[in-house]
Amino acid sequence: MKITIIGLGLIGGSIAKTLSGSKDHQILAFDTNQSSISNALENQSIQESLESLDDLKRIEYEDSLVIIATPPSVTTDILKSLEFLFNSSVTITDTTSTKSSLNKILQKFNFPENIIFSHPVAGSHLSGEINSIDDLFKGKSTILSYHDSAASLHVNRVMSLWTELGSKVSVLDAELHDQIFAYSSHLPHVAAYALLNTLKGLDQDDLALFSGGGLGEFLRLASSSPEMWTDIFSMNEKNISSAINDLVQSLNILQDKIENDPKSLQDFLSELKAFKESKF
Amino acid sequence: MKITIIGLGLIGGSIAKTLSGSKDHQILAFDTNQSSISNALENQSIQESLESLDDLKRIEYEDSLVIIATPPSVTTDILKSLEFLFNSSVTITDTTSTKSSLNKILQKFNFPENIIFSHPVAGSHLSGEINSIDDLFKGKSTILSYHDSAASLHVNRVMSLWTELGSKVSVLDAELHDQIFAYSSHLPHVAAYALLNTLKGLDQDDLALFSGGGLGEFLRLASSSPEMWTDIFSMNEKNISSAINDLVQSLNILQDKIENDPKSLQDFLSELKAFKESKF
Repeated sequence: MKITIIGLGLIGGSIAKTLSGSKDHQILAFDTNQSSISNALENQSIQESLESLDDLKRIEYEDSLVIIATPPSVTTDILKSLEFLFNSSVTITDTTSTKSSLNKILQKFNFPENIIFSHPVAGSHLSGEINSIDDLFKGKSTILSYHDSAASLHVNRVMSLWTELGSKVSVLDAELHDQIFAYSSHLPHVAAYALLNTLKGLDQDDLALFSGGGLGEFLRLASSSPEMWTDIFSMNEKNISSAINDLVQSLNILQDKIENDPKSLQDFLSELKAFKESKF
Repeated sequence: MKITIIGLGLIGGSIAKTLSGSKDHQILAFDTNQSSISNALENQSIQESLESLDDLKRIEYEDSLVIIATPPSVTTDILKSLEFLFNSSVTITDTTSTKSSLNKILQKFNFPENIIFSHPVAGSHLSGEINSIDDLFKGKSTILSYHDSAASLHVNRVMSLWTELGSKVSVLDAELHDQIFAYSSHLPHVAAYALLNTLKGLDQDDLALFSGGGLGEFLRLASSSPEMWTDIFSMNEKNISSAINDLVQSLNILQDKIENDPKSLQDFLSELKAFKESKF
């Protein structure tokens, strides 16, 4: 199959590297960063680069797959610019971690049958094609979101893609996707940034000496790209705001138990440990 | 030197295992858990076990070192019960991560010159002698806290101990120790438990599928012993309560920026990333 990757960063580059091992695919890419394209051509992870997205209008792209792997805020614009492919034989998917704003575009176009959203739950605090690897998705979860009107041909094509990349595929409604990920992924990052801000306020030079494993776990979360997280936080604003309210409420419960009730505190921590062990 | 370890858990057991490689020491231990003692005798990480703490009254313990490596709440009682050794030639140290309540005991006894507190910033979510290892303290930070009246002989003895165990040793006033660790170590654990409680409220079966690296980092923090963390939280209650207030304030700042000001949000996240990179 002909596969076109728009945006050759960590995610797009890793898709290309992983698929390039198979002879079944012809991989093309578009990126405004010319060094990412040069790298990928040199590594033979892609066969060809596109000059512009208009190249996708050429007839030989029929029955192919287009993967938008750009930052979240750019993805909405790219999706809109591919209007000429809506309801064609070309399957369109993406890789971003928020879906509601993309879903609004689909709604405006009455849910084209060839658009299937993807969210590979994989990443790194490193970014760019230069850091891409050929097993980024192996064993990781990938969530698909699509409307009832999506054609099974296109759904199957996107499922096959992620299965070939080594992912475990599951399906979630776009709105529910954003609600759940606000809690399971975005909130831990908010908490890490909030903790860093709290430590910054402490004005203490030797923090590295006084931080055990606990703090280190948190800090890695704040190593990712501020641009990307600004996009994600802003595009899932309402759900994240609710999640922050719930986290503050849980902090208040803990604070009350720490101050007033050590016995009930220990029961509470034991229940949370049991919950963790039952779910993860 | 003769070294007596009171409490042969993860920390005490790891001290014994690490020191047993050297022929310079005779290592004795006391623990109410007989299987920990049997294990350690079998591994030859200790040479002898004590029947009771009263054994320490025997004359040949002069010029020796006693390490209290029990859980925080027990440590205060053990320290009090060693009153017969205060201001003797026996050096006394501990391994707990809160110091203010121990310091109150010292104050009551007018700061005996032979008590030097230790906090090795090392651990594991596993506990018990069975999980002890011979390089737990290697490359890790250990903080000493002692009063001006401490004799240099005893300070040096405890410094030598941690240096031999592979730690980087630094010194901090006991009250300041508890203030800083409330933020750098205890607060991340509070936040992890609060996040788990928030996720529990979500009532979602497939959380493991929807959690990326971000959540996993947090979850490991809540794997430790609820008993130990109840002790630590309760013994450093006032400082942790202030730290929780500061964290809630930082969460509110982030929430406001996410809802109202994406541009200032990106600057804020960039500053926090830069702070992290300058300090850790």
